[in-house]
Amino acid sequence: MIMKDSERTEYFNEKAIEISKKYKGKIRNLPKIPIHSIDDFSVLYTPGIAAVSKKIHADKDLVFELTGKWNSVAILTDGTRVLGIGNVGPEAAIPVMEGKALLFNYLGGVNAIPIPLNVKNNDEFITAAKAISPFFGGYNLEDIESPRCFFLLEKLQKTMDIPVWHDDQLGTASIILAGVINSLRLVNKKKEDVRIVFNGAGAANIAAIYLFEAAGFNKKNFIAIDSKGIIEPERKDIDALMLNNPWKYKIALDTNQERVKGDVKNAFKGADIIISASKSEPDTIKKDWVKSMNNDSIVFALANPLPEIWPDDAKESGAKIVATGRSDFPNQINNSMVFPGVFRGVLDARSRGVNFGIMVAASYGIADYVKDISYDHIVPSMSDFDLFPEVASIVARKTVESNLARKIDTQAGFYRTASEIISSNRKIYNKLFDK
Amino acid sequence: MIMKDSERTEYFNEKAIEISKKYKGKIRNLPKIPIHSIDDFSVLYTPGIAAVSKKIHADKDLVFELTGKWNSVAILTDGTRVLGIGNVGPEAAIPVMEGKALLFNYLGGVNAIPIPLNVKNNDEFITAAKAISPFFGGYNLEDIESPRCFFLLEKLQKTMDIPVWHDDQLGTASIILAGVINSLRLVNKKKEDVRIVFNGAGAANIAAIYLFEAAGFNKKNFIAIDSKGIIEPERKDIDALMLNNPWKYKIALDTNQERVKGDVKNAFKGADIIISASKSEPDTIKKDWVKSMNNDSIVFALANPLPEIWPDDAKESGAKIVATGRSDFPNQINNSMVFPGVFRGVLDARSRGVNFGIMVAASYGIADYVKDISYDHIVPSMSDFDLFPEVASIVARKTVESNLARKIDTQAGFYRTASEIISSNRKIYNKLFDK
Repeated sequence: MIMKDSERTEYFNEKAIEISKKYKGKIRNLPKIPIHSIDDFSVLYTPGIAAVSKKIHADKDLVFELTGKWNSVAILTDGTRVLGIGNVGPEAAIPVMEGKALLFNYLGGVNAIPIPLNVKNNDEFITAAKAISPFFGGYNLEDIESPRCFFLLEKLQKTMDIPVWHDDQLGTASIILAGVINSLRLVNKKKEDVRIVFNGAGAANIAAIYLFEAAGFNKKNFIAIDSKGIIEPERKDIDALMLNNPWKYKIALDTNQERVKGDVKNAFKGADIIISASKSEPDTIKKDWVKSMNNDSIVFALANPLPEIWPDDAKESGAKIVATGRSDFPNQINNSMVFPGVFRGVLDARSRGVNFGIMVAASYGIADYVKDISYDHIVPSMSDFDLFPEVASIVARKTVESNLARKIDTQAGFYRTASEIISSNRKIYNKLFDK
Repeated sequence: MIMKDSERTEYFNEKAIEISKKYKGKIRNLPKIPIHSIDDFSVLYTPGIAAVSKKIHADKDLVFELTGKWNSVAILTDGTRVLGIGNVGPEAAIPVMEGKALLFNYLGGVNAIPIPLNVKNNDEFITAAKAISPFFGGYNLEDIESPRCFFLLEKLQKTMDIPVWHDDQLGTASIILAGVINSLRLVNKKKEDVRIVFNGAGAANIAAIYLFEAAGFNKKNFIAIDSKGIIEPERKDIDALMLNNPWKYKIALDTNQERVKGDVKNAFKGADIIISASKSEPDTIKKDWVKSMNNDSIVFALANPLPEIWPDDAKESGAKIVATGRSDFPNQINNSMVFPGVFRGVLDARSRGVNFGIMVAASYGIADYVKDISYDHIVPSMSDFDLFPEVASIVARKTVESNLARKIDTQAGFYRTASEIISSNRKIYNKLFDK
């Protein structure tokens, strides 16, 4: 059945409401331990359990070995930028966070709990996030407006002793990097040389700029664009940026070596790569702009649900490789390729944190996973289940090398652990639903 | 196999550590919804899910119908008074909270999440607790030191629009009341007339005093005792009490009409009932004190693991009915009889709160559940599975009558709902473990 975009959307919407009404939530709690009789609670609860508490009190790191902390992740949001619909608040964010929890569980074997936060400001967010840390082995921030998302991520990463991830920044940036790594392999260009336009300066692209720099790209060859045009240090709002968005301000100073200014189309001239995360409307990127790019140009038009330029139009204008956010075109750039493996990895290593070095390793792992790369196949898809333990093992091993791991193992050892957890979780899932 | 107390304890301790090491946590997350292929995520996650978020944004109460909030409870603690071992902090509290979550799930079909809080003071506790409310339909406070537990419960009950319960106060007080209701039926005494000594003035007994008053007992006939002796308004520390523990201060003013002072044994003379929650050491309550009580006396010696007086000693001294906190003596006073049904009830009614009126109804429901009451059988036991939907239906109906319910139904309707949820949860559990 071929459906038009509006019909598809309508169908998904109706189905989503129907399922949400029927099931009233997407995840449930279940015991991990068989209970034979009520007497078992003498061991599972009082009085026996006090002995376990005493052991943790004596050595706090044992909390990872004697409780569920090692596999529990809080999905934190304030609901200020919920997927596709904006600032709708923490209650309305729950359906999205439950869907995310489902993905965490299904793909990564992780126990993820939606914890939308009802907070008035950044301080309350930080206080709450720090307060709830004892039970969680990691945090996934989600759907938080920019620039506060940068502040919250930075602050929490600095103060917490568990990995803190903002998927709209780090997850998206990692899969973009993976896609670009394979694209450059196909067009035979070097990361040190390519000129990249980052069109749009929200969570994903700001993170991508810093990640690409960490991966060895030359930031002087980047040009970033936001809703007010090309970002450069002589722009009128530069002082306001310094105060309100130091992450973007730094980009204004460090990138765009040639100080290209003015019309957006000036940025496209001679560029090798466009990473666009801006307006969900085709023709936001003009065909003429793509035509003005370098040979073998690469266009990532990632706005959802409608890309900034249709793939056919980009290709007609000379783009060799086109990626979008959609599953119905080739090369879907989707952070669901990243977070299940990354979290499996940092959790299995009982990591104290996550950083750009680990993310670069993850991106190369994702890129390398695609054995038969081609213009229409630069990234894996969500049904590549083997990807997740593979990424997990790379990430876990990298946390060891970064001195962040509480648990040391080889990459092969971490691979076995991740595979075992994900497949045993899948088995339980299949049993539950008689598959 | 007969074991001595110390052997039993040692056995439970070793077993608890062994199981905690093996399973690393007692609860897991699992999907509630069958996933047929990765394409399902177009409905379970983006883009379809945005339609569900929009509906909740338009009408916030729909969060109870379209997400898992209706059945999710946060177990909140700061780890300042963990069962039997004191102030060990939030990490060491996790094994206990996981055990509690297991009981919530197994007995009440509730999705309970341990959220131990790493907080420095009451303000941080309140900020964190208020922040995380969007996903939860109720809070269960646990293992928090007195008197801060009174402050936190009162403050959260006033400011939240979901039920907030402190099990060490409200759960324990409710099962004590249920036990006393049946005891009075057996000895043919009236609640308005009986003289009660509350020996110990921690969380449970303070709550019990207020609950007994709400149930129609005459507080002028109560005498409360704390570690400094009989509580009365001429005690030296009365001004300090006013500042630090207004709940106890109010008790000093309102109870003990005869202004009994001095030695603890003075309080026991002529009393009908002793509710003791003090020192875990037999002979804390002397046989002579019990002998000085009224005819057909009732002794609840609830300290764990060792009661304040052995049941045989109390009976030899004239007690007609003796209850303890232990499962190996008759009449175990255990809040696990209460919270699964109470939470099932408030959740099923989508209640905005819980109060003493609802608790009194729950206590009568628990007392009435025991059809064949006798001196050795005044309360149900944890294997009385039918108790929980019964209590749930009484509680849910009472929240309707108290104008706290968001969902209206008859008691029979609520009974069907609670039974269905608990038994379907049990079925899934059995399937998971091949029972």
